[in-house]
Formats: sequence, C-alpha cells, structure tokens
Amino acid sequence: MNLKQLSELLGLSQTTVSRALNGYPEVNQATRERVLKAVKETGYRPNKAAQRLATGKAGSIGLVMPTETGHYSDVHFGEFLSGLGEAAVRHDFHFVIMPADPQDEIGALRRLAASGNVDALFLAYMRTNDPRLAMLKSLPIPFLVHGRSLGSEPDYPYLDVDNEQAFHDAAKLLLQLGHKRIALINGPEHLDFAIRRRMGLATALCDKGLMLGPEHMHHSIMTDEHGQLAMERFLRLPERPTGVLCSSTVLALGAVRAINQAGLKLGEDISLIAHDDVLPLLRPENFSVPLTTTRSSLRAAGSRIAERLIGSLQQKADMPEQELWKAELIVRASTGPALA
Amino acid sequence: MNLKQLSELLGLSQTTVSRALNGYPEVNQATRERVLKAVKETGYRPNKAAQRLATGKAGSIGLVMPTETGHYSDVHFGEFLSGLGEAAVRHDFHFVIMPADPQDEIGALRRLAASGNVDALFLAYMRTNDPRLAMLKSLPIPFLVHGRSLGSEPDYPYLDVDNEQAFHDAAKLLLQLGHKRIALINGPEHLDFAIRRRMGLATALCDKGLMLGPEHMHHSIMTDEHGQLAMERFLRLPERPTGVLCSSTVLALGAVRAINQAGLKLGEDISLIAHDDVLPLLRPENFSVPLTTTRSSLRAAGSRIAERLIGSLQQKADMPEQELWKAELIVRASTGPALA
Repeated sequence: MNLKQLSELLGLSQTTVSRALNGYPEVNQATRERVLKAVKETGYRPNKAAQRLATGKAGSIGLVMPTETGHYSDVHFGEFLSGLGEAAVRHDFHFVIMPADPQDEIGALRRLAASGNVDALFLAYMRTNDPRLAMLKSLPIPFLVHGRSLGSEPDYPYLDVDNEQAFHDAAKLLLQLGHKRIALINGPEHLDFAIRRRMGLATALCDKGLMLGPEHMHHSIMTDEHGQLAMERFLRLPERPTGVLCSSTVLALGAVRAINQAGLKLGEDISLIAHDDVLPLLRPENFSVPLTTTRSSLRAAGSRIAERLIGSLQQKADMPEQELWKAELIVRASTGPALA
Repeated sequence: MNLKQLSELLGLSQTTVSRALNGYPEVNQATRERVLKAVKETGYRPNKAAQRLATGKAGSIGLVMPTETGHYSDVHFGEFLSGLGEAAVRHDFHFVIMPADPQDEIGALRRLAASGNVDALFLAYMRTNDPRLAMLKSLPIPFLVHGRSLGSEPDYPYLDVDNEQAFHDAAKLLLQLGHKRIALINGPEHLDFAIRRRMGLATALCDKGLMLGPEHMHHSIMTDEHGQLAMERFLRLPERPTGVLCSSTVLALGAVRAINQAGLKLGEDISLIAHDDVLPLLRPENFSVPLTTTRSSLRAAGSRIAERLIGSLQQKADMPEQELWKAELIVRASTGPALA
C-alpha cells in the first residue's frame, strides 16, 4: 500500500491524504479521521521512521556532544555545526546529537550507531591514539573524522587542516622578522591539532638552532580568559617572549588585553599571530590592531564534511577519502620586526 | 521474543548477545553471525528505532536550525544547546536537529514532527504573532517555547526572561545617574526579545517625560562588528547619547571598541549596560572596564527547558506551564554619573 493507492481507495487527492497524515490544520476533522481509519485498516505506513526502517535509511548524521556541568560550550563547535547544516539542508538530511559524559563517548557512539536513527557518524576533538577509531571501524555504518589522530594507523577517512605546516609558517615569519623568543598559547594538550601546532613551532625554532622551552608554552581550553592569563604569565618572565602564536582568535582576544594592560604596543613591542577559524563573532581585521593570522574556515570544513558523508551514503565515487587543507598566512598589523 | 528469550535460545549470556548486536569488537565473528541469524529467524528487534516505533517513544527532542549560506552562526545558540544537553544527558535523551531554510521553518517543524523521530519540539527566536505557534498547537506532540510572542494568545508553554523589566531597570539606573540621552543597540527588530527590551527602555524614558528617538536606536544581528558600527554612528550625532543599552555582550565588545577608538572613557564620558547571557567566551568582568549588566544564564534556560520537556513526556505534574525569569542588574565600572 502506497500513498497513491491509499488516496484512490479513499477518493481523496494525495495532497489531502498527506496533509491529513501530517497534521495540517486545513484538513477538517472528519476527513482526518477517515484517513487515519484507512491507515489502520490497510497497514499503510505514513510514518517516516517506519518508512526509513523499511528502507534502512534514516537521512541523518550522528554526532556525540561531550557535555557536563561546567563544561564550556564551544563557539568553534557552533560554527562548525552551521557548516554541516549548510550542506545537510541541500540534501534534506538532519542531525542526531547525543549529549554524553566525556568519559562515555565510546558508549554514546555505539548507542547512536545501534539506534538505527543515523546513517553515518561524525567524529571530532581527535586525540593521539584515539580509541574511538578502532570502535568506529568495527561498525557497519560509515564515519568521517574532522582532524586526525597521531599514533593511529592513518587508514580512516578524514578532513584536516595542516596544523603543523600552518604554525611552522607562522613561526618562520616571526623568525625572519628577527624574533628569537617565541611563545605558544595553545588548545588542550591532549588534542591532536594542539600537538601538531606545537610541533610546527618547535620544528621552525629547531631549524634555527632554537628551543621551545616549557616556560613558553600554555595549554588550556580556548577562552579569552585563558588567553589573558597565559599572556600575563609570559609578560612576567625575566626574558619575556617578543613573539606569540595563539591557537584561536578567542585566545588572542584575552592575550591582546593583557598586552594592552601592560602598556605594551602590539606589533611593535610584541608580535602576535593567531589561528583564525573565521568565526563571525571575532574578525581578526576588527581588532584595534588587526591580527596577522593563519586562516582556515571551520564553516567550510563542516560543509565539506557533510557533503562527503552524504555523498558516501549515496555512493558517489568522486569523494576523496582523506583531505588535508592548507591554511593561509595573512599578514596584518600585529606582527613587526623584533626590537634590537 | 525479547533479549532474555533470544539469549536462552542461543545458549549465550544476554551481555554477549547485546554486544554482538551492537557491534562490539570483543565478540568473535562466528558468534556474531550466529546471533544475527537467530535475530532474522525469530523476528527479534534489536534495533532501538524498531523498539521505539513499537513503544511510540523516540527519546528525543526536535529543533529546527535556520541555515543558509552567509547566515551567521550564533554563539548564543551554542551556549543554549549546551544547557539543553546538560539536562538531556541525565535522562538519556538526544536531539534531532533539522537545518532548514529560514523561509521553510514551518515545513521543517512539520517534517520533524511527522518523522516519528522526536517526542517533543523546541521553539526559539520568537517573533510577534508567530505563525509557528498555531501550527505547533495542532500537532499531537508537546512543545516548549524559549521566549514569547507579542500579539499571540498567551496559552502556550514557555520559558522567558522578563526582557522588558530588565531593560526598564537598566534604563532607570542610567536616569538616576543623570543621563537623559540613552541609546539602544538591539538585536533583530522582528524578534520578540528585542521588541520587549526596546519597550522597557522607552517606558522608563517616558516616565521621566523623555522620548526614545529613532536616531538613538540600532537593530541588527548581534556581532561585535554591528556593535561597533552602531556606536560609531551614535558618536557622530550632534547631541550624542551619554548612556547606551546593548542587547548582548557581543554587541558591547564592538561598542566598547568604538568608544576607545574615539578617545572616550567608558564609565566616565559614556555609560554602557549590556545584557549578559553568561557566555563563557565573553565575561563582562573581563572587559578592560568591567561592564554593568542585566544577567540571565542562557545555559540555565536551556537546561530548564530540556528538564521541562522531558518531564512533560514522563507526565510529571509539577512542571509549571509558563515561567518568567527575572534578570539581575549587576553594577560594575562601565556606568557612572552623566557629565554636567
């Protein structure tokens, strides 16, 4: 029994039957009741969940959202979700978001996959030797990773920014401008992107015979408050850094505040380069001293990832398995020559 | 056929059968195949979607996310989602988020409700005479509104902040400090919260025989860039305002930049009060001149809304239908007496 047959049986148009089933107020009560009675008698399945159960497709992508009281919401996550949404809306896909205790992410991913409510899974906030990868590979549904996992066999589908190259390029610019003490205000230490960015800086310094000392490194969640605290600590060092790399414009917001409050001039007394995820909230060109940045759009990454996941479900063959995006290095006023 | 019966039939523990069905790698291939064969033969439903189809419960709340290319992601939305997640994780609920063209929100809500994938719907970004309310009332599943809709019959379940009172209180403080020209940097003009905040300011001015002129009002999406542009325009007026109300700390970020760039002192030359949604990204106490604010936590609102929706599904009787939260007025350094 399909919609056409049901409509013919009832002597109603398919539009009317469909509207009655979907609760449109324009359909009068008597008609609605006739339709519902016929549905019961014929076993017609108006319910999309039922249809999807039959076809085995849910039209959705599953995500786990680590959640706990006091856990910071992440502006980067919201922006990424907007990008996913841009692509999903073109294909009439939706998302199933499962909030989960950060200790229970693997369990939550399993439950999502087993629920039958998602066709594919999306993974982010990658760590070294990430234990979620092995589990995802054992599941019968496809998945896609935003980022990579150092220490894991690189045999999984991903989209990543070349974080090591980005921070290597940024550090190299500061070195060319004569800076020798370059510090890092980074994201959480256990996350893959943070490790790669640190490696990029360390390698550039090493090429010049310089070392990245522990007193010049800060790792934390990426809020302006943490950026400010980190910069305040750097500025109290006997030999303070003259150049700083920041893993987010959000961290840079706090770092710049600390520089201003210390009475120093950004781009003269101290140079700073931030990674710019192109958050509409914080444009680097709008800082009172516009920021030099490594730029890669999180929204574009989200959109591309949703396109790839949906494409893999529709078995489009031209979807590359692994993509590494290059960040652009854009010079503005926050960088200048090191003072002699 | 339930899990216990299936396990007895196979001579396996329930744990092993459950693990085999959920794709745990610890279960060997032969056992997994035996289990899957028995599932087919017996008609056992391991699939949660199937179970939920049988019980009529999906364990989820549906949201529509307005999405279009160039549409700004909203940091306020991310923070609210974190609050929803906090409550949902306690009850093992998840979210189904449907991205939709802003012109097609009603259609998207209908499709979500008809999908069978959600037990309840959540509605936000309320407008005057909001057409979505009538549609939601016609659906067989419960819904809850964040905010309210001026011009609509107030017979729907909601949680709102008393936005009119908040901005009335803020304006009253500025008036007591001797300010007479008070301007408003507000959210989008068609949104209910923005209209109520404008009313709060207008009423407080009116009580003192003053008018809120069109040259003293700005309406836009709430980014720092728009806050800056609005403040720059105010500062160019022949009789510039001495006090300003901002609908978000994000708008205030740009407004304060414009004040600084004009060489004016916040809290002395010009006073500013911002509404603080308690975004972890932008704490008003961390501004170089700490901001006086009207405060109400978006995350707490999200958590409460999820509790109420889940409670209504579990038919807990003590869930109030309508809640109006009072914002706190917290005085910091960005407000001071009007210059004579």
